[in-house]
Amino acid sequence: MDSLPVSSAPVPAVIERARTFTRPALEQAVSRLHPDLARVCGYYFGWCDAEGTPTHGRGSRSLQACMVMLAAEASGEDPQVALPGAVAVELLHNFTLLHDDIIDGDTIRRGRPAAWVTFGTGTSLLAADALWAAALSALIEVPGTAGRAAARALNTSMGVIINAVAGEAVFDRTPAAEIDVDAYLAICETKGGELLGTAATIGTLLAGGPADQARSLREAARHAGAAWQATNDLENIWGNVALVGKPGFQDLRQRKHTLPVIAALQSEHPSSRALRGLLDRKELDKADLTLAADLIEEAGGRAFTERVAHDRLSRALDTLAVMSLPDTVHQNLATLLDFTVTRRPRTPSGKE
Amino acid sequence: MDSLPVSSAPVPAVIERARTFTRPALEQAVSRLHPDLARVCGYYFGWCDAEGTPTHGRGSRSLQACMVMLAAEASGEDPQVALPGAVAVELLHNFTLLHDDIIDGDTIRRGRPAAWVTFGTGTSLLAADALWAAALSALIEVPGTAGRAAARALNTSMGVIINAVAGEAVFDRTPAAEIDVDAYLAICETKGGELLGTAATIGTLLAGGPADQARSLREAARHAGAAWQATNDLENIWGNVALVGKPGFQDLRQRKHTLPVIAALQSEHPSSRALRGLLDRKELDKADLTLAADLIEEAGGRAFTERVAHDRLSRALDTLAVMSLPDTVHQNLATLLDFTVTRRPRTPSGKE
Repeated sequence: MDSLPVSSAPVPAVIERARTFTRPALEQAVSRLHPDLARVCGYYFGWCDAEGTPTHGRGSRSLQACMVMLAAEASGEDPQVALPGAVAVELLHNFTLLHDDIIDGDTIRRGRPAAWVTFGTGTSLLAADALWAAALSALIEVPGTAGRAAARALNTSMGVIINAVAGEAVFDRTPAAEIDVDAYLAICETKGGELLGTAATIGTLLAGGPADQARSLREAARHAGAAWQATNDLENIWGNVALVGKPGFQDLRQRKHTLPVIAALQSEHPSSRALRGLLDRKELDKADLTLAADLIEEAGGRAFTERVAHDRLSRALDTLAVMSLPDTVHQNLATLLDFTVTRRPRTPSGKE
Repeated sequence: MDSLPVSSAPVPAVIERARTFTRPALEQAVSRLHPDLARVCGYYFGWCDAEGTPTHGRGSRSLQACMVMLAAEASGEDPQVALPGAVAVELLHNFTLLHDDIIDGDTIRRGRPAAWVTFGTGTSLLAADALWAAALSALIEVPGTAGRAAARALNTSMGVIINAVAGEAVFDRTPAAEIDVDAYLAICETKGGELLGTAATIGTLLAGGPADQARSLREAARHAGAAWQATNDLENIWGNVALVGKPGFQDLRQRKHTLPVIAALQSEHPSSRALRGLLDRKELDKADLTLAADLIEEAGGRAFTERVAHDRLSRALDTLAVMSLPDTVHQNLATLLDFTVTRRPRTPSGKE
């Protein structure tokens, strides 16, 4: 399996800071695993190649770790108090991706063959499990009630995400015409935003911040998560392969009921019927997939999904705007949420 | 995939009591999962068939739950205080089996097609993950320091088990002649006894019992676990298929370096060389597997493994014998450890 070209798109300074902040503690957590599992994790994090030789591959976006830090700063604390939280959410995020690739049969992640392709399903599954145990461990070891509450928040969030993944699978086997778009969006919000929202909760808890701040940050994060899922669905059809790090049309090939597809199949536009006929075919070649993308666009699926992404990102930023936060923290949070959705740093004007 | 005949071997009363004790709380925990995941778990626990229709299938042996209860009673408490612990270890035990079947590619469990065969890898993996989250949740929700310590013990134990599974895989690809048998036995002890030992720790913690009692019970459990792994290796070659609930020779077919195989390949007996030649063949049919079993026995692999099983069970019972425990609790613990290894209730004389 060939690697994809990897984009070196610029990353906002606040994200870069989160990566630098968490990297030593992440490496330490991974170094405690069995060497075979540590190698899978190192490969997945972009620290080494499949043989364990150090590289500078594309790794996690570190959005969750960044949220933990900013939530601590929003509570007026040094992010250092929340380091175990930043490590825990990063470890857990990567656990979910490792399992997702196995569940979905996705063969490419971060521009490289997925871990299960490179190391086999068993070893990847085990490495992922090890990351989960390490994530919980990072929080359970924090003394005092905050550590316990944070561990509880992380574990609860896992249960919620797992149920959402199961819920999404139900939508994939439900005829698109019968899918309730709001129910589908609720799943998107959880899949894309639950862990980011929990990162806000954990950062606030570890910094001893107020519960209402955690709630607002969590709400903003969940809106951004929904916007990100919608954007992800768009990228999978019309995205820049190098930026995305995955081959195009994967979702369409697997007949996934993503938002653009659902919206297109529920529209009254004549292209909707043509799309349905096309997707009912057994095999889809490259030309069929390109045609399907065009039909989805003609039937309004792309525009609908773009509106959802735009609307949810606006709601995320509006939620932030009414919080009373120090200016720098506010700007950094806005940058984080914007980057979560767009994958691009904001320009100084605050627009893309 | 056909089901195997399921044995209705009698179960000691103390085990039956643990099943009855935990069942309602287990059902409640599973009912909180997404229905598709709850069905996988119900099937795996032997509560329903693949369509969700209630059955009385063969389920978990409930050894871990039984240990939690007895550890609480050894601390002079009603087992009720330790119910969350009993539920947590049962959930986690079944999580490990669900993942193990995927990792090992085992197609039969408890006399039925394995969950991944029936429901697919993705759904089974997700159901297992949900069990883990539910297990941690059961303990994190227990108020006070005991709940936190118990959650920590469970999570730490998972990390230890995961590393041991990775370690076992290394032994499978190491030439049998080069395997250090003591190092291999240490892995067996962890794979077979870590969760049972942690069940003892958790039961003692939740009942506020003394740390030295927890340590002794844990030691006894780890010895029994090693004995169980050795017995399991024997059963896989010479066992009663109905009692075991798995097809015979699975380990041999997969060229696993189990204890009888390692011991036989390291022996000086002429059959050892014949065995090596046989196992180097690409394909093994039923006659080859039967011949391999005979060669292992001739080379002393069976007798060695039986000695290990016998010795480790004796050490487990000796560890119990020097503890100062109420008579009934002592007898019940001895019954539990004995049944863990032999799968048969002890006769009144205490012998098989």
